Amino acid sequence: MKVMVLGGDGYCGWATSLYLSAQGHEVSIVDNYVRRQWDHELGAQTLTPILPLSDRLRTWSRLTGKNVDLFVGDVTDYDFLLGAIKQFEPEAIIHFAEQRSAPYSMIDRKHAVSTQVNNVVGTLNVLFAIREVQPDCHLIKLGTMGEYGTPNIDIEEGYIEIEHNGRREVVPFPKQPGSFYHLSKVHDSHNMMFATKIWGIRATDLNQGVVYGTMTDEVAMDEALINRLDYDEVFGTVLNRFCVQAAIGQPLTVYGSGGQTRGFLDIRDTVRCIEIACLSPAKRGECRVYNQFTQQFSVLEIAQKVQEAGKDLGVKVEIDHIPDPRVEAEHHYYNAKHSKLLDMGLQPHFLSDSLLDSLMNIAVKYKDRADPTIMLPQVNWRETRNGRRMQTNIGDGMAVRAAQAAGEPGVAAAGKKGAKN
Amino acid sequence: MKVMVLGGDGYCGWATSLYLSAQGHEVSIVDNYVRRQWDHELGAQTLTPILPLSDRLRTWSRLTGKNVDLFVGDVTDYDFLLGAIKQFEPEAIIHFAEQRSAPYSMIDRKHAVSTQVNNVVGTLNVLFAIREVQPDCHLIKLGTMGEYGTPNIDIEEGYIEIEHNGRREVVPFPKQPGSFYHLSKVHDSHNMMFATKIWGIRATDLNQGVVYGTMTDEVAMDEALINRLDYDEVFGTVLNRFCVQAAIGQPLTVYGSGGQTRGFLDIRDTVRCIEIACLSPAKRGECRVYNQFTQQFSVLEIAQKVQEAGKDLGVKVEIDHIPDPRVEAEHHYYNAKHSKLLDMGLQPHFLSDSLLDSLMNIAVKYKDRADPTIMLPQVNWRETRNGRRMQTNIGDGMAVRAAQAAGEPGVAAAGKKGAKN
Repeated sequence: MKVMVLGGDGYCGWATSLYLSAQGHEVSIVDNYVRRQWDHELGAQTLTPILPLSDRLRTWSRLTGKNVDLFVGDVTDYDFLLGAIKQFEPEAIIHFAEQRSAPYSMIDRKHAVSTQVNNVVGTLNVLFAIREVQPDCHLIKLGTMGEYGTPNIDIEEGYIEIEHNGRREVVPFPKQPGSFYHLSKVHDSHNMMFATKIWGIRATDLNQGVVYGTMTDEVAMDEALINRLDYDEVFGTVLNRFCVQAAIGQPLTVYGSGGQTRGFLDIRDTVRCIEIACLSPAKRGECRVYNQFTQQFSVLEIAQKVQEAGKDLGVKVEIDHIPDPRVEAEHHYYNAKHSKLLDMGLQPHFLSDSLLDSLMNIAVKYKDRADPTIMLPQVNWRETRNGRRMQTNIGDGMAVRAAQAAGEPGVAAAGKKGAKN
Repeated sequence: MKVMVLGGDGYCGWATSLYLSAQGHEVSIVDNYVRRQWDHELGAQTLTPILPLSDRLRTWSRLTGKNVDLFVGDVTDYDFLLGAIKQFEPEAIIHFAEQRSAPYSMIDRKHAVSTQVNNVVGTLNVLFAIREVQPDCHLIKLGTMGEYGTPNIDIEEGYIEIEHNGRREVVPFPKQPGSFYHLSKVHDSHNMMFATKIWGIRATDLNQGVVYGTMTDEVAMDEALINRLDYDEVFGTVLNRFCVQAAIGQPLTVYGSGGQTRGFLDIRDTVRCIEIACLSPAKRGECRVYNQFTQQFSVLEIAQKVQEAGKDLGVKVEIDHIPDPRVEAEHHYYNAKHSKLLDMGLQPHFLSDSLLDSLMNIAVKYKDRADPTIMLPQVNWRETRNGRRMQTNIGDGMAVRAAQAAGEPGVAAAGKKGAKN
């Protein structure tokens, strides 16, 4: 099957591209490297050292004999996107090419606007392009479980049947998202439902939970294929961040009481869910919605699991409760359905002690690359101008790396405590 | 009360600005005249001859002694918007400054994208500006009844209480809008609900029905104050368009069977609803939603009422059923609640025979300005590139005006049939 992965250089996109290629699908990647640019903007780097995409793809080709096509450009540039789709003629398009961090969207007005414009315009472009040049192509779009918020009723998969004043109707599940980023995904979902209806195109909206893990069989084949592992306060997903905090001896930063409950999944299940959706496409005119996660935990439960895993490795892990920078319920009912992908054959990787050990081991392996200054939250939902401050006067991790890169001994560089910005 | 009207040069905005000024409120208008630019783009002009805004405001001042402040600029330009709000310090902001035509948003991809970006970014800017410099200011935002679509259940005002699997919750009413324009308003509504919650600002979302009529007490005071009356296929609301079609002897163009049922209101009720919302502001952190219409009719019922009114005036009115260019249900259940504004004191102007007579009289009065070529639909929801064609080879209305403006006799100009574009 010919599959085009928009955002194939990112965390989920990279793992998905290689997995689909390994399964024998013909894969192309569309990416403009803006995710790497955001790293520079934020003064944060993935814990794992990732190579340029061209090097990654050459390694993949050398190891497996499989080629992944690459189109470098921005999906908000319609002429570029249309050209890529015309040339590759995909049967499925997987759309990861969005700004996907809630804190990033809450930094200030410009980040809120750029997140919503980027995501909404990109998805509109994909919908128009499919209709105009590849109308039978199946769009598989990454949404988020965060679109639903935390209502006091069970969360269904995309739609809910309501009885009201004696009449019944199946309607889109009401959305109560919790950031300008999550809102952008809600906007996308509404635009997709409409476009599938008026143009008869095929779409699957995957409302994904919080993803954890770095290793899939494919990226484990060679250090040059390693996936990114974000642990900073802006792009780091919670379990990944906790593992890195534990590995470097920082307390785990639980926001508030930690009763916030969310759906979680292993990145190995992300890639499999995408393939399941590809192999069984939506019908023409259908906008399917699947909730893509395998287990639900509270943030405090996640922290306690990391603490337990630390014990096994002889690492003492503390849990800090810090003021919640987000506006969200710290205790709430949460029961989200997620049976559709299981019914279609997903065999979940559950979060187990052994898995936690291996996540922790990866964090420990790369801990010298960790920057301890980028994990405390600096983006407060209640403010409209969150001036993030990068710390450069610290004596480990980042400063040592900078010194090494500059040919200086680490200690000398770490001694330069003057420069704050 | 100090009230700032964003989009005060438009159809609803102009009537509202003068009404509020007449009631003794201190009013300012923010507008960038893009609505007049769209007239030029579409080759369509309001039936009524409207003056430049500066002339309108001078006339208002001369007649009433009341000044309306004017800020010329674009609400998507944050620095401009922030400056205007800082200077005027409004207690309420009425936000009409959006692209408000469904067909305009469906012309092609560029119009879909520009509609959603303009409306979403403008509203985000207003929300941020209120939070940053005028946090107690009450935002009154124009939504649309079209946000709800036509579900098979009663439509509530913004929120609905659901019982699901034995649990109850009040949630935002599920939205199923029918154009990229209507979708932009749904996006706005979600953004507003979130912003009010995290920042504690005040907002009222007025989901307005289809507005009809031109005359309010204020604009009737002088020909120089006359409001716009749009009757073209893109910006013309249905009752206004039908009256003009009747006045110039064209059949009324009912899309499909005409069973599409919508909420309607007189523009005199629009302005009063806005004042009611102003005088009783939302609480801090509250996002109220009112359905702003007074009666519901099917499109065919509207056409039949115009036909009846024509009889009284001795005008024979025919009704044509043409293929529906939109993707929408032609027969459906429709029962939308609209009691909140009535409870707060709205005294509705119902659509009556005498009102229809006066609407028809205005259409007849200005019928020499009517362009008979701009009323048939050229924008088809099922297509992604609707190249609209302006007709310049016709022998009446527009051509005569153009000839007069050029100093030529009308017949000579009308005889030039060569130029099509």
